[in-house]
This record gives sequence, structure tokens and C-alpha cells, in this order.
Amino acid sequence: MNFLLENATIVSNNPTREIFRGSVRVEKDRITAIGKKLKAKPREKRINLDGQILIPGFVQTHVHLCQTLFRNLADDLQLLDWLKERIWPMEGAHTEKSLYASARLGIAELLSSGTTTILDMGTVRHTDAIFTAADEMGIRAFIGKCLMDRNDCPKELREPTAQALKENLDLISRWHGKANGRLRYANAPRFVISCTEGLLKDLRSLSEEKNLLVHTHASENREEIKIVQSMTGKKNIAYLDHLGLANERLVLAHCVWVDEDEQSLLAKTKTKVSHCPSSNLKLASGIAPVPTFRKAGISVSLGADGAPCNNNLNMFQEMRLASLIQKPVHGPTTMTAQEVFEMATLEGAEALGLAHEIGSIEIGKRADLVAISLDKLHSAGGSDEAKSIYSSIAYACTPSNVTHTWVDGRLVYQAKSGKVGGVSSEQILQDAKRERRKLLQKI
Amino acid sequence: MNFLLENATIVSNNPTREIFRGSVRVEKDRITAIGKKLKAKPREKRINLDGQILIPGFVQTHVHLCQTLFRNLADDLQLLDWLKERIWPMEGAHTEKSLYASARLGIAELLSSGTTTILDMGTVRHTDAIFTAADEMGIRAFIGKCLMDRNDCPKELREPTAQALKENLDLISRWHGKANGRLRYANAPRFVISCTEGLLKDLRSLSEEKNLLVHTHASENREEIKIVQSMTGKKNIAYLDHLGLANERLVLAHCVWVDEDEQSLLAKTKTKVSHCPSSNLKLASGIAPVPTFRKAGISVSLGADGAPCNNNLNMFQEMRLASLIQKPVHGPTTMTAQEVFEMATLEGAEALGLAHEIGSIEIGKRADLVAISLDKLHSAGGSDEAKSIYSSIAYACTPSNVTHTWVDGRLVYQAKSGKVGGVSSEQILQDAKRERRKLLQKI
Repeated sequence: MNFLLENATIVSNNPTREIFRGSVRVEKDRITAIGKKLKAKPREKRINLDGQILIPGFVQTHVHLCQTLFRNLADDLQLLDWLKERIWPMEGAHTEKSLYASARLGIAELLSSGTTTILDMGTVRHTDAIFTAADEMGIRAFIGKCLMDRNDCPKELREPTAQALKENLDLISRWHGKANGRLRYANAPRFVISCTEGLLKDLRSLSEEKNLLVHTHASENREEIKIVQSMTGKKNIAYLDHLGLANERLVLAHCVWVDEDEQSLLAKTKTKVSHCPSSNLKLASGIAPVPTFRKAGISVSLGADGAPCNNNLNMFQEMRLASLIQKPVHGPTTMTAQEVFEMATLEGAEALGLAHEIGSIEIGKRADLVAISLDKLHSAGGSDEAKSIYSSIAYACTPSNVTHTWVDGRLVYQAKSGKVGGVSSEQILQDAKRERRKLLQKI
Repeated sequence: MNFLLENATIVSNNPTREIFRGSVRVEKDRITAIGKKLKAKPREKRINLDGQILIPGFVQTHVHLCQTLFRNLADDLQLLDWLKERIWPMEGAHTEKSLYASARLGIAELLSSGTTTILDMGTVRHTDAIFTAADEMGIRAFIGKCLMDRNDCPKELREPTAQALKENLDLISRWHGKANGRLRYANAPRFVISCTEGLLKDLRSLSEEKNLLVHTHASENREEIKIVQSMTGKKNIAYLDHLGLANERLVLAHCVWVDEDEQSLLAKTKTKVSHCPSSNLKLASGIAPVPTFRKAGISVSLGADGAPCNNNLNMFQEMRLASLIQKPVHGPTTMTAQEVFEMATLEGAEALGLAHEIGSIEIGKRADLVAISLDKLHSAGGSDEAKSIYSSIAYACTPSNVTHTWVDGRLVYQAKSGKVGGVSSEQILQDAKRERRKLLQKI
């Protein structure tokens, strides 16, 4: 696992945001040297990236691998129809096998499009299948079983509180910190509406005691906010704060509708926001006020959400959209290519408490790296200036520009090989097709 | 050029919008038979599209091939800086060679991502280079030299009226109707602001006399509208109507800011709107009220605009965005996948006066066809239902799903071949790189 990447244009994301032509040495799982003229050691494996760009792997802070199998099956629907008629029945019908196939398809798409780290919300059952897929395929992943214990939750997903919490603890002991620390557990109450106050309070203690993330949906749409208000007498984020959950270990997906008071709360408590532009548009939720969040000092990272509300898991698309949708309101110089690139890397690392480990190409950090070739019909162009390089990545690239992906120094994707995470793409597609067919027959 | 496409899922766009598994026979430039069980003729060439989707080629009603070379060089800028500091100087610096390279790169991207017909606005000079590239590579194209004759136009582009009109006529006689009718001329005054009233009046007569399209930008942003109002005393579209230009031969790119009176005018005169969602967001112009237009009976088709304001020329992206950006305002069931697919095909054909020739897979129409494979990590999923097939195309596909493109029965792209429009992709990329370098040195 030791090798030298040579002649790349390195977009380092280091504190001075240097971009330079040079080499990166990887030993085991870490970056051990970076330089404009590194000499290869005797017998060191050399990989020539001449003409290519090397970036830190993307970090997606909100995905649902369990939903990858539902892609193209739940479109142009009202949110409640989307959940009740499609997502919940399909999640409820998952078997361990179908969930494994769904996770593998999602991870394969993620790794092959440059995402090396995810924060994933599972469904209520079979969470081991997601961890197993992530373990085998090599993605860095925070995963949690979805928690839904209120009586009014859909019956195919609802669990008694004690049972939910017990399985949560079992999963933590089986998976948290495994695979050289690459796999971690993240508590995943679905949203306030689906959880009892008792469960949320237990998660607060658990998160504090074991230093675990809490990952939930919040303030995605106005209907949800009204329900939370009527259930708790409080606004959504105020309620989470009241329970002691709002802190730097809390990652909130969406936050489309957050008023000024709640924005102050997010900033003060260092709660993290995961912005999902495709999903927010597609489900008609709205456009999150991201430039305002960032001015207020709130950490905002990016996620593709699940395949049925996107319909890809592609960080290039989310970067481009995170930039473009703000411009009509805030002007064309808002949310520059560099800014969304940093949200897709550094801010993601920050949100997951991994800023010291990933998000940039620096000595001592994990070797989570992605090589990109711009030399394609749809992306060719630009100059050697930093501004142009960021534009190329954020506005012109698609997954087909990715040539190599490494996580912890392991080559988990190489475009030419037809394999991803050690498995042939064909096998992953076949398994997904078979399991999807079975799932659709069940519901 | 005779062949039989077999075993495809045909998304026909015919009057009943049938989707079925079957075959399509192409003889010379036309579709001559379609059926669920067509038998191959003796010695007929057969192409097996088992597992693939066959769609009519996409029609983009607003592109600038002359700008493809400027990709990734003009991002996150105010519109006026974008035009004055980047686009105009670069257009002004074009040589015949650089324009040819720019057009080839753009056409290669278009054909390889399923676009078979374009309405292109050139720059003021060297328009033959664009026609030549289109002629050779086989795309169906309406092309026109850009007309800018007002004294306050940028000096590197401004032309005397008589000279502009003379060249316009010369180009018409050289190119209009050539290549089996595949190449056509479209008059292209840049926008009201850049044209004298005399020039616009002459174009009105010319368009009427020779049945030619007029292709211009209109009501892209509020500043432009103010200038038109102060120049002419009229609103933009009212002014075009006052000159007799607003009719079914007029295609207006953008129309982001069009009030109710002007919407009625668009509907009444059958003026066509080309909606460019990526460009409108990126240049912070706004979001065109497309659902309102369509309810009012206005024809709306799609275009990627130029590479510097997008940064791709990819119809999948424009379909997806045309749908997604309307949903937060008009709800999640607005602008369905099927609706944007039809805008990308049938409505484009309609806008260009070619509804009898292209836009659907029907006997007697031109063989402008695209084969798509969904079997990729980012798009796999869905069912055999029509709704799911449209979703797959509009929301999940990227250019890498396209396996074959035919125009007038000619195979102009095959993913496996490494060639597009008869030229190797590598050659096109090399030429573009060389010409871009020379262009950047000049300015």
C-alpha cells in the first residue's frame, strides 16, 4: 500500500490553499510526503498522474444507502405521498440481502464519482448489511440504524423504544471504530416527528458518553415544522437544543426553513448543517439560505440524500447546484466554485469531527484521494489559474472525469478496471437488479 | 446507411406517447418502419439494442459553439464583467482556425450526449468555420453569424450595418439548405441593445421572404430590459413585435423577465422561448416562469447556452434543472420528467419549424436517434413503467449513458469507438487545446 503519485496538479486545500504541480507519497493509510520534486524511493510503486488533478476525496454528510434500490421509482410526487406510498413501504420490505445490494450499488456510485466519506442514515433493520458493504468496499462511513419509535410511525418501520435502543447499542459495539477507524457509528433518529422524547434524551447521553455523532433531518419543509411545533410547543431546532442535542456532534440534514433565532442557535451551539440542494428542489422543499448560514459562521457541508430524491449520488452535481441556485438571489459572485469545493471537502470533514484526518492533502492526513482527468469533451478547457481549476471541478466535471479513488491508501476505484471496492460493477448491477425485482414483488 | 435497430425500449414521443419494446428500420436518412416484431430483410444490417432505450435526438434551441473554447475561463462574474472582460474580447480574438476548433469541440460534446439538432448563434466573423464543422461532423444545425451594428457595441465585434447584412446574405446563399437540408441559416441579431432598428427591420423582411428563423436573446436580465426601454420607449418583446419580428419564426433565448402583457404577446404571435436554466442561474439572471408560459400556450424548448455560462452542453442536465428549479415554487408535481423530456425533443422541433421532420420516432421522420444504456452505477434502477423510464432519462442519466447517436441515419457517435462526427475525440481535444492557448496569448 505504499506508492508515489507523480506529476499531478495538486489542489491541496491546505491552510494557504496552494495548488501546485507535484507528487504525493502514501505509506499505508497516510500521506507521508508532498513536494514539487519528490524523488521515488528504490522499488517504490509510481503512478503517473501527468495532466490530471489530484483532490482530497469528497465528504457527503447526508446519504441513505438503503434507498439506492428505489431510484427512478418515486419521482414528481408530494412529499407525503413520496414517503407513505413509496419510501416507507420499500424500506419496510428490505431484507438483509436487498439492503446489502442497495448499499453496494450506492457505495459503488459514490466511490466511482470521488466521494470517499459518507454520513449514512440506514433504515430500521439490517444495519449490519450496510456496515458489511462499507467494510468490504472500503469507503469511510459513519452509519446508523434509523430510529422511529413513536406510535404514529408507519407500522412497517416502527419499533418499541427499548428494542431500538438495544439494537443501537449492539451495533455500536460491533462496528464503531472498526476497520482502522474507517467505520463509525452515528445515531440516526429519523426526525423529531418519528421519535419519543425519551429516545432523544437517551441519544443525548449516549452521544456525550461515547463521543458519537447524532444525524437527523430537520426543518426540511414547513409542514414538518408545524407538526414539531404542535407536538413539542417549540420550534424544531429550539426543541433539539432544549433536549441538549444541539452541539458540535449534531448533523442536521436540510435546514431549509430556519428563522433568525434558530440560525443564532445553530451558530452558537456549533451544530452542523448538511445541505442537499438536489433533494430540496426535487421534493419542492425550498432553497436553504446557505450564504446567510455561512455568514453567520454555521458549518455547511453537502450531501446527495437518497437516490429516489436526486436521482444520483454525485458530489459534482451537488457542488454545481449549491452554487447555481443561490446566484439569482445573492448575485453571480456568491458561492464561488472554490467555496462549494471547500464545502464538499473541508466542511464535510469538519462536520464529522474529522478535520484533522481528512478534507485536504497534507502530510499526516489519511490518504483519501481522487484523481480527475479534465481531458474529456464536456470538461476540456480553462487555464492553469486556481480560479479556472476550481471552476473546472465544480461546474464542468461529471463522475466520468474520475479516474482513481483511494481511501486510507487503498485503491478502491480505477475507471479502467471495471471494478469498484474490489467488486466488478457488473456484479453489483446484477445483484441490485435481482433484489429490486424481489422487493417490488413484495410491495 | 440502411439498418435495423432491434430489441430496444422505444420512447416514441408519438401522438399517443407509446413506449414499447421493438425495432426501428432506417433507410437512408429516414425511419421507414417501426414495429414490435419487425423481421430483418436479407442482408440488412442489424444492431441489437437489447436492454437499451431508444429516444429521438435532443434539440437544443440556444447554443454558442463559438464559446466552447472559453469554458472554465469566465465564472462567478457579474454579467457585464462576464461579457466585457471575457466573452467579447475572446470572441473578437477568434480566428477561423480557433472558431473551427471551438465548434468541433462543442459539436462533439453535443453529439456524444445525445443532442442531434441545434440552433446556434455564432460570433460576428468566420461563420463558415462553424458551418464547415457542422457539415463534416453531421449534426443538424441552424447557424447564424452574430449581428452587432450599433455604434456602442464593443469595437472588437461591431460591424457597419451594410457589411453585416451583406455577409448575412452571402452565408445564406452558401449554406442554407445544404447537406440534404441538414444545415440551415438562422438570422442572429445578438440582442436589441446591439442592433440598429434598420438592421432589425431588414431581418424581418429577409425572414419573411426566405422563411428563415430569427434567433436572439431577450429579457435575460432586468438591466437589459431597462436599457431597451430607454432606447426604444418600449418593452423588449413589445418592441420586437412592433418591428414585425414577433412570429413563429422568432426564437427568443431566456425570457426570464416577461410581464403578463408580454406573455400574451408571446402566445398570440407564436414566438418561441428557449429556456436555458443553467445559464440563467449561473449568470444570476433568475428563474424563467416556464410553467406559467406553458399554461399560456407558449412553446418552450431548452438550450445549454454557451460553455462559459454552464459549463457543459448537456441536455440531461438542462432537463433535470428545468424540472427541479420550478418545484420549490410550483410544487413537486410540476414539470414532470415526461414534460421536460418533451420540451427537450418535440418542443425543440416545434420551435425550429421541424415538428414534421424530427422530435419523435415515427415512420417518415428523419432518423435522428439516440440509444441510451441505463445499466450504469449512477442510473441503474426503476421499473418498466413509462413514468419510471422518463424519470430515468430526465433525472438520472448523464452523457455517459449515451451509447449511439444517429443523425439523418448516419452514426455520428458510438461510445466504444472513441470517435465522434467521424473524428477522434483525442484530435478534437488536442486542436482545442492548441487554439485556446493561442487565443489566450492574443488577449
